[in-house]
Amino acid sequence: MIVSALLTSVGINSVLCILFFALYSILRKQPGYLYVYVPRLLAANGIEKNLHIRLRRMIPSPGWVKKAWNLTEEELLSTSGLDAVVFTRIIVLCLKIFSFAGIIGLFVLLPINCAGTQLAAFDITAISGETLDLFTISNVNNGSKMLWAHCTAVYLITVFVCFLLYHEYDYISSKRNAYFYSSKPQPHQYTILVRGIPVSPGSSVSESVGNFFKEYHSSTYLSHVVIHRTNRLFFLIDYVKKIYRRFKHKQSEPVKEYSRFDDSFGVQKSNLENGDLEESLITEQWDASFSGQEVRSAFVFFRSRFGAAIASRLQQSEKPTEWVTEQAPEPDDVYWPFFQATFLQRWMSRVVIIVASTLLTVLFLIPVVLVQSLANLSQLEVWFPFLASILTAKVTRQIVTGYLPNLILQIFVKLVPPVMEFLSSIQGYISFSEIQRSACDKFLWFIIWNIFFANVLSGSFINLFSVLLDLRNIPSHLAVTVPAQASFFIAYVVTSGWTSTSSDLFRIIQLIQSLLRKCCCCNRTASDEFELPYIYYHREIPKILFFGLLGITYFFLAPLILPFLLVYFLLAYIIFKNQFLYVYAPKFETAGKFWPTVHNCMIFSLVLMHAIALGIFTVKKLSSASTLIFPLPVLTLLFNEYCRKRFLPNFVAYSAESLIKKDREDLNDSEMPQFFSELITAYMDPALSPLQCSDFDGHGVPSFSDISNDHIAPLLSHA
Amino acid sequence: MIVSALLTSVGINSVLCILFFALYSILRKQPGYLYVYVPRLLAANGIEKNLHIRLRRMIPSPGWVKKAWNLTEEELLSTSGLDAVVFTRIIVLCLKIFSFAGIIGLFVLLPINCAGTQLAAFDITAISGETLDLFTISNVNNGSKMLWAHCTAVYLITVFVCFLLYHEYDYISSKRNAYFYSSKPQPHQYTILVRGIPVSPGSSVSESVGNFFKEYHSSTYLSHVVIHRTNRLFFLIDYVKKIYRRFKHKQSEPVKEYSRFDDSFGVQKSNLENGDLEESLITEQWDASFSGQEVRSAFVFFRSRFGAAIASRLQQSEKPTEWVTEQAPEPDDVYWPFFQATFLQRWMSRVVIIVASTLLTVLFLIPVVLVQSLANLSQLEVWFPFLASILTAKVTRQIVTGYLPNLILQIFVKLVPPVMEFLSSIQGYISFSEIQRSACDKFLWFIIWNIFFANVLSGSFINLFSVLLDLRNIPSHLAVTVPAQASFFIAYVVTSGWTSTSSDLFRIIQLIQSLLRKCCCCNRTASDEFELPYIYYHREIPKILFFGLLGITYFFLAPLILPFLLVYFLLAYIIFKNQFLYVYAPKFETAGKFWPTVHNCMIFSLVLMHAIALGIFTVKKLSSASTLIFPLPVLTLLFNEYCRKRFLPNFVAYSAESLIKKDREDLNDSEMPQFFSELITAYMDPALSPLQCSDFDGHGVPSFSDISNDHIAPLLSHA
Repeated sequence: MIVSALLTSVGINSVLCILFFALYSILRKQPGYLYVYVPRLLAANGIEKNLHIRLRRMIPSPGWVKKAWNLTEEELLSTSGLDAVVFTRIIVLCLKIFSFAGIIGLFVLLPINCAGTQLAAFDITAISGETLDLFTISNVNNGSKMLWAHCTAVYLITVFVCFLLYHEYDYISSKRNAYFYSSKPQPHQYTILVRGIPVSPGSSVSESVGNFFKEYHSSTYLSHVVIHRTNRLFFLIDYVKKIYRRFKHKQSEPVKEYSRFDDSFGVQKSNLENGDLEESLITEQWDASFSGQEVRSAFVFFRSRFGAAIASRLQQSEKPTEWVTEQAPEPDDVYWPFFQATFLQRWMSRVVIIVASTLLTVLFLIPVVLVQSLANLSQLEVWFPFLASILTAKVTRQIVTGYLPNLILQIFVKLVPPVMEFLSSIQGYISFSEIQRSACDKFLWFIIWNIFFANVLSGSFINLFSVLLDLRNIPSHLAVTVPAQASFFIAYVVTSGWTSTSSDLFRIIQLIQSLLRKCCCCNRTASDEFELPYIYYHREIPKILFFGLLGITYFFLAPLILPFLLVYFLLAYIIFKNQFLYVYAPKFETAGKFWPTVHNCMIFSLVLMHAIALGIFTVKKLSSASTLIFPLPVLTLLFNEYCRKRFLPNFVAYSAESLIKKDREDLNDSEMPQFFSELITAYMDPALSPLQCSDFDGHGVPSFSDISNDHIAPLLSHA
Repeated sequence: MIVSALLTSVGINSVLCILFFALYSILRKQPGYLYVYVPRLLAANGIEKNLHIRLRRMIPSPGWVKKAWNLTEEELLSTSGLDAVVFTRIIVLCLKIFSFAGIIGLFVLLPINCAGTQLAAFDITAISGETLDLFTISNVNNGSKMLWAHCTAVYLITVFVCFLLYHEYDYISSKRNAYFYSSKPQPHQYTILVRGIPVSPGSSVSESVGNFFKEYHSSTYLSHVVIHRTNRLFFLIDYVKKIYRRFKHKQSEPVKEYSRFDDSFGVQKSNLENGDLEESLITEQWDASFSGQEVRSAFVFFRSRFGAAIASRLQQSEKPTEWVTEQAPEPDDVYWPFFQATFLQRWMSRVVIIVASTLLTVLFLIPVVLVQSLANLSQLEVWFPFLASILTAKVTRQIVTGYLPNLILQIFVKLVPPVMEFLSSIQGYISFSEIQRSACDKFLWFIIWNIFFANVLSGSFINLFSVLLDLRNIPSHLAVTVPAQASFFIAYVVTSGWTSTSSDLFRIIQLIQSLLRKCCCCNRTASDEFELPYIYYHREIPKILFFGLLGITYFFLAPLILPFLLVYFLLAYIIFKNQFLYVYAPKFETAGKFWPTVHNCMIFSLVLMHAIALGIFTVKKLSSASTLIFPLPVLTLLFNEYCRKRFLPNFVAYSAESLIKKDREDLNDSEMPQFFSELITAYMDPALSPLQCSDFDGHGVPSFSDISNDHIAPLLSHA
């Protein structure tokens, strides 16, 4: 890629970012857009929307940046939960790594690269300064002693990253424990999910569960709820919801008097046009609750956390496929549709989904290759000869080569996370959080394979595989192809990093939706169907980690990428903190279970860097350096193995010590009897619970009592 | 290899086998060799050795064969434990598989192979019938429709093996449970081992353990024993033992009055020449027991099996490297030397040993290659020109090519299991049984790599790796090279299978030892230092499994191997059952934990066969068949995955249901208080226990009360 094309890309994206920031600074203060930009504040306090229009409101104000920057970890923890803290710590980790790497890269490696004459000796165009390769390791002369600087840099960054990773794992692990100790009694701590319940002829599932746990866990067993088959009901309820909404629209002004939280459907249901539908719904509920539609799964409640842990972590039955137990998810986090599957069905669907997502990951290359060929201008002219006149213009030329390929790729990639989430949802997980964690892993490997490897090994489907199957030559292959793609990835950081994150701040899709609603429907309907948004961890975490991977692998090859990455991480740091404060509500709490994915991805990035370094030093004819690199991946993997032993168990389950301590604390709590009586009804299939309006928005609004007026006052003062 | 050389090898080995059988039939009846051939009977009953010499004793009698054949599983279980049953079931499984395979192979595939003309078209020597290749798949014409028979056979055998594997896993899993239910209360069921005990300043390890378990497991905690550092003591005790033995020799006739089981060292110690040694020993014991040599590990005893299971299977501490718990091994099975290592040390030694055993496995190829070149006669003549005249003789020629290579290989391989056991012993395992299981896995991979792959890919070190690193071409590589080695492996089955197993029956090394002792020392000393032998599972199981692998992979390539294998398995069936009855005493009881290794190896064999079949059908230009083979490995691996889920948990630990049931049974047992009082002293480091003669033979003699006179009478009647 030529420098000017890259500069065009940087220019366009910088302008876009500034535009987004400026527009956001204005729009967030407009009453009509509060639902788009500060939904959490609205949900918490119901800010008066009819503020008078003031001039100040039309001037962009950067106060929110400072506010987001100053938001402490404790504040974030109290308002958005530990997952949000862990999420921002990923960004902070990357900021730390690339600040260190940036100093080495820009002040040591970059001058060495530029001082080389390797490319000048072979390539005339290089002298004209038109390619970015001058700034990469490719320009260092073969066999030059200067390459030892790169080798040292690889060592330094590996040690630094491992050091940070260890401390971060340790820190988050301790945070997890602290979170557990400070938590109030929560239903899921006392509950396990049992599946594969064997039923003897003549008895019901419920009797079977009761007998089993009374027999083997008599001292801690409290009660249980058998799950019912409700798939048909789900569709019916969805249908009723739609009708209800339409009905509510027609139902007149004053909308504001309608308070969605305490208005029960029971009061209004007589107004429903569709009487027989409602009737059939109630019949279904009746059937499901009391007839033979019991599924062989149940939630079982215990008197203590330790009791639940014993029942969930020890194999219960002689037959491992019966009485399969696991800790229950939070009540709101339960994913209900998959409880009726048997052990074999769940196992099969798991296998099928793994195959399907692998196929999706692999076959996705076809559009990527298409994108690759689009980047080739002459190819474009051949395909669309009628565009020839436009394409030959210098400006379009640079836009096409510098910007278009990334944009198309981005649009394709944007479609993948929902697909991965869907695949994970039919893989048999029992909670939304597990579905998202699984989708997160899937999307991460998708993005690494399809964006990194497909671009680096630049190529056709077959070529890619033949390279990867020839294990021995992978390093030297990578050594040749990776540096060559430096400029592509710089452009990628700018396009997919800067602009995409800024558009996340600007919430462009939600803004358009809200505008469309304003135009099409009558006024303010948007606010009525208002639902608190939540962050898609399975989309955002892989993106951030991928930039981390790019940074680590390119750090010693093409240090020029580092400042662009640093700008991206700074943007992300401010934007996501701001969004946690004003937009994203926590949908579930995994208490930092996403971290092992982060750790593993960082280790993978390091080992990938070592493989490339191994190849580079061989290609560059400094074989002693490549020999010296060899122990590095081994040591890194050993370090990873140690961390797995040292920290991972804490991310799987809490220890007996913590559970018992916490149980003892609660012994004297006067609220516990009340809690236990509520516990028994906590896990109610939404399809079977009494129909209430609050259910009609899908997910109840999480409590947001911790955001005080301190947070809102400054917003309004800027407004 | 030429047919005549193979026939020579078969001939020599058959003669050897018959010789071993005949000699065994005679020698086992001689009073002087009872210690070699029926030690278990001696240990149980102390048979009168001075039988009168009768003529009958000098005539070989085959009665023992019938006896061994008729030994039922229940008898074997009661005398030798579940591990012995599982061991014989491996042989039975192979017998079943290769009977089925033999029918297909010999009556369907072999005629098809012989009818082919592929080799005749290319190779003149093939017509003369001098090579065995005529009987292999290589002789079937390329693209011939007859190859579909082979493809069908591959499918049939896969289905048959998987069917058997499933039922066997199921059967052994149920046997394991039955064994547990029928067992008496055993110390290890109530005991856990705790390592990484943190000690606060000013308190001892013992206090720390007591406080922790009183705090968190108050209802089930019984007591504990802290482990002491005793390495120095071990050497001292070993030394004392030697001196004691020497001293006992001098101490006179009549030897027979010495009863080794109730004779305490205390009575005789005043006679020991080396008084100050004994003193230093006692001082050491005192130091170790009461001074600061406590190790941060302890055995903790519980009132119930379920209590012990809860403590061992739940992570105890917030820090996963502290309070690391696991179920304790049987008291006799404990491997004491490694308890003082910290978490990090154990982890490091684990890593080092894995690297070391991998290196041993890989570097062992050098002698194998040497053996390969020995098989080449002309090479031998170059190396040892003075032998030229002998080597040119036809008989030596055939011996050298047919027999020598295998013999040398065998001797090398024989040295490996002890080395692997040694490596496993410093890997940080806490029991002999785990050491043997780990050594079993190590030796299995060793043998597969060094005997199968090294021979098949015939070759030099570098060549082997370059083939394996080029993943795509592995099947076609194997397709070419595997059938070519058929005759080598037939010879291997005959040498290493038939003769080696027969020599196991004949106990040739022990016989020579006993003869040497008779010659060198005075009479009958052999019987005084008599120790019950035990079977080396880590040596025998991999050997049997390797023959299974050979059979499965060669079944459709060269069915001629099958009859040889069947003979081997029949021999093994009779010989090992006989040896369990008369020779090998159980040293520990894993209750069938070796089975998962067997299952995995069989699955590996199947997948290897599929890879070869894939290559063969491609090479033979029947691409539709190779396409049809493709789903087979995938399905096999899925089957394996299902079995892992379905059965493997039962081989790791007993279920809560079983534990609680068993605990309840014991509630009313009047012997339990007595059991608990003994439990506390069950885990005593042998280096710290009072010095008794019974300790001096290393491992106490296992109880053998279950062998009744019914077993001994027929032996004597034949004698």
